[in-house]
Amino acid sequence: MLAETPQPPYYAVIFTSLRHEHDEGYAAMAERMLALAAGQPGFLGVESAREDVGITVSYWSDPEAIRGWKAQVEHREAQRLGREVWYSRYRVRVARVEREYGL
Amino acid sequence: MLAETPQPPYYAVIFTSLRHEHDEGYAAMAERMLALAAGQPGFLGVESAREDVGITVSYWSDPEAIRGWKAQVEHREAQRLGREVWYSRYRVRVARVEREYGL
Repeated sequence: MLAETPQPPYYAVIFTSLRHEHDEGYAAMAERMLALAAGQPGFLGVESAREDVGITVSYWSDPEAIRGWKAQVEHREAQRLGREVWYSRYRVRVARVEREYGL
Repeated sequence: MLAETPQPPYYAVIFTSLRHEHDEGYAAMAERMLALAAGQPGFLGVESAREDVGITVSYWSDPEAIRGWKAQVEHREAQRLGREVWYSRYRVRVARVEREYGL
């Protein structure tokens, strides 16, 4: 599924990661976080894929919505587990979407 | 590999797509486009993964660099093949990266 986002401008959080081999509980957490994010104020959609690198792009109405999601209690715990257990590396990029087009 | 990008601001092109079943020549084209992009002025890095959805995020110094890549002759031919043969749907989102952090 591609995200059905509105006319720009809006915001994207580009989360890219490399995982450790051991990944107990990771899939369940990832699924739970997608469901939680979808219920957050200002959530516009999400796209996710993993091969060697994992890429999750979530779309948000504005920076305030992104701050709200980052501070969400259960998500904070997932962030902690991500840093301590699941990810060997990750980058979070917050970007303002200026143009969108496609097929 | 995660992209090693400089301090923001810089630009991201978030390309997400759904493919048709038949994909003759797709892998070779995708690999060629990554190599070509890496040689373009203003290219900063790329991250790519595909499961149900394909996500390729390329990073660029500025909008002019993105225009240059979009207009590159061999890339234009790949874009045409993408529209006509490989992709059932795609979205291109051009975004200005404002913040970056990570592990």
